[in-house]
Amino acid sequence: MLLSKFIPVANAKKIISSCLIKPSTEDIDLEKAYGRVNAVEVHSKFDSPPFNRSAMDGYAVMAEDTFGHSVNNPTQLIVVDSIIAGAQSKVKLKKGEAIQIATGAPLPDGANAVVMEEHTYLEEGLIQVETSVFPGENVSPACEDFHKGDLVLDKGKILNPPELSIVASAGFDHATVFKKPKIGVIITGSELVMPKNGVEGPEVINSNHFAIKSMVESCLAVPEMFHSVDDANLLKDMFNNLLKDYDALITTGGTAISKGDVVVDVADEMGEVLFHGVSLRPGKPFTFAQIHGKPVFMLSGFPVAAMVQFDVFVRDALHKMQGFQIKPLTVQKKATHKIASSLGRTDYVRATIEGDLVRPLKIKGSGIIRSMVESDSYIIIPENQEGVFEGENCWVLPYQSLKA
Amino acid sequence: MLLSKFIPVANAKKIISSCLIKPSTEDIDLEKAYGRVNAVEVHSKFDSPPFNRSAMDGYAVMAEDTFGHSVNNPTQLIVVDSIIAGAQSKVKLKKGEAIQIATGAPLPDGANAVVMEEHTYLEEGLIQVETSVFPGENVSPACEDFHKGDLVLDKGKILNPPELSIVASAGFDHATVFKKPKIGVIITGSELVMPKNGVEGPEVINSNHFAIKSMVESCLAVPEMFHSVDDANLLKDMFNNLLKDYDALITTGGTAISKGDVVVDVADEMGEVLFHGVSLRPGKPFTFAQIHGKPVFMLSGFPVAAMVQFDVFVRDALHKMQGFQIKPLTVQKKATHKIASSLGRTDYVRATIEGDLVRPLKIKGSGIIRSMVESDSYIIIPENQEGVFEGENCWVLPYQSLKA
Repeated sequence: MLLSKFIPVANAKKIISSCLIKPSTEDIDLEKAYGRVNAVEVHSKFDSPPFNRSAMDGYAVMAEDTFGHSVNNPTQLIVVDSIIAGAQSKVKLKKGEAIQIATGAPLPDGANAVVMEEHTYLEEGLIQVETSVFPGENVSPACEDFHKGDLVLDKGKILNPPELSIVASAGFDHATVFKKPKIGVIITGSELVMPKNGVEGPEVINSNHFAIKSMVESCLAVPEMFHSVDDANLLKDMFNNLLKDYDALITTGGTAISKGDVVVDVADEMGEVLFHGVSLRPGKPFTFAQIHGKPVFMLSGFPVAAMVQFDVFVRDALHKMQGFQIKPLTVQKKATHKIASSLGRTDYVRATIEGDLVRPLKIKGSGIIRSMVESDSYIIIPENQEGVFEGENCWVLPYQSLKA
Repeated sequence: MLLSKFIPVANAKKIISSCLIKPSTEDIDLEKAYGRVNAVEVHSKFDSPPFNRSAMDGYAVMAEDTFGHSVNNPTQLIVVDSIIAGAQSKVKLKKGEAIQIATGAPLPDGANAVVMEEHTYLEEGLIQVETSVFPGENVSPACEDFHKGDLVLDKGKILNPPELSIVASAGFDHATVFKKPKIGVIITGSELVMPKNGVEGPEVINSNHFAIKSMVESCLAVPEMFHSVDDANLLKDMFNNLLKDYDALITTGGTAISKGDVVVDVADEMGEVLFHGVSLRPGKPFTFAQIHGKPVFMLSGFPVAAMVQFDVFVRDALHKMQGFQIKPLTVQKKATHKIASSLGRTDYVRATIEGDLVRPLKIKGSGIIRSMVESDSYIIIPENQEGVFEGENCWVLPYQSLKA
């Protein structure tokens, strides 16, 4: 039997961080790399763009030829070539000449600016230029994005559209990414059944199966789901088997801060329970162990408590196991109502954002899933703060910003 | 040839909205439903929880038996049964009796409260209760989450963990969701090549292939990628083929506001170009058409312009095609620097959030992918505002909050 001692949220996070497994890497097709985490420094293979490019459809010119010209005083240039996209001109542009050019095409030798097509018209075989351009106007200079050898992407960055775009631009059609951690999830509880038309007697629907599975997915990790009745021997066998194949385990249920709870007791017997209980509401019975060198996160059986514990502790840990971290996008809002809290305890209060205001939900029970569905954010009341007054500014964490 | 007229961003959005195709639905396994969009009203099959449950490990009692008792004045009760999770008691509790009960188990008949195990000890076959509980204490009442028939989830909601959890709790192992729209993406440009070790002559890496593919994926839609050289006939064939199979098309390139640009001209010939050019920077040449009754989004070839146009116009449209909308999570921050803008034009300025401040990037070019990688948000300067002063509050849209 394990005695529990509640520890502050920050301490719990520190302990977890020190137990995480360093991720290994794999090489994958860049086509399939969206949402993966870059694992190496990416240095460009070449300059980008590799040449001065026209930024407009129009005419490549010597800017000097246009100086002082306007709608009322156009200048005439001889068109000596035409460059479509994907082509380049062999002609060297001379004074008094223009070369028609498409957006993105390389600026021809001799030219230093582009006149937009809109400011020209053809007359008697000559192009009439009705504007003055400065050297470099409408030209994207070579290397304006990056030079050969530049670090274009650091490791630990999620490959979102701009990151994929720059890795491609640097010449790579593959990416080296951190492997997705494989997470074994054991939902415990003899009373749990999968969704069906009617529940009988003491049966309760195993909603945690769906919640925790998708939460692991939302962290870019790969969950495998298991169920166990409340039996220490069965659970021990399951732990032993899964710890061989998975990078971490998550359990729900069996963590109550009472005499002898099956999951925590099994963890205590098999490895080291590093803490049992945190100063958090909801989610107090959150427990963490290291067994066979692997992290084991033990969540409550109550759906809301389990989700909050996941958001506060597991999410960040699964990110770190893939080599990245997300800066939480907390915002300040004024509370529509007073919220009670206790010194020494961190509160995550389900709430809804309403413009500059945030409204704490009246529902408190940690089994009430509806409260998570009807809220869109947590009000976070830190442990050194004794609640929030009506109209007081407080820190709000929108659910939407939790996802990787 | 199509004459262009820039229209305000809001008008463009309205026009697009009126052309979107209503999504059809499909029935899928709830196990695979994370991130999908719920397409029907979900009403519960039963009460949840279906019975009064113990919220703690401890002893079910009549609260009245404990009134006035404490550590210094415990009361003794006879333990007449034990209920583990997943079981229920056939015993009806009488005055002076207690039944041991596990968290989540149904409260036995006759009991109206639970004493936590920590507040009891066994002595000479009796349980000593060292506390007083009120009726309902440590009990999760039946139906506290929802009643049979209650609407637990409305249509148009993304199936995130809490939503999956409540749908399961309501008795469903399947979900009816909107089909993911199939999006044909045509990257145009004769100069474009896929990533490789060295680029030659006028070649430019097709970075938009990776950016737009992953942006469509980030909207929960399914992209299929194509490439076309700048040839009107080839493009027309491609449009004709793809419009049969896909719910919408996206193109990049060939939209320049000049005389005769291939993509826009083809769209104009085949269907109705509803606008060509918006008062947006970057991203002015954004064009939208309806062809064979389907929406066609025409983005710039410049990577940054294309990404901004996608974020401003296409993202929301792809969401609506799946029956949902995301409320953008804009925050107010003080600008570290003055930002110039013009009345009548909406600016999306790449920026980085630094606590309460936001720093606009110095980089302006719409071909500079690095500027998207190095920024984390847009400062949005609305069309009725002439720039932002140093230290002035402005609206900031973090990239992180754009994803569905």
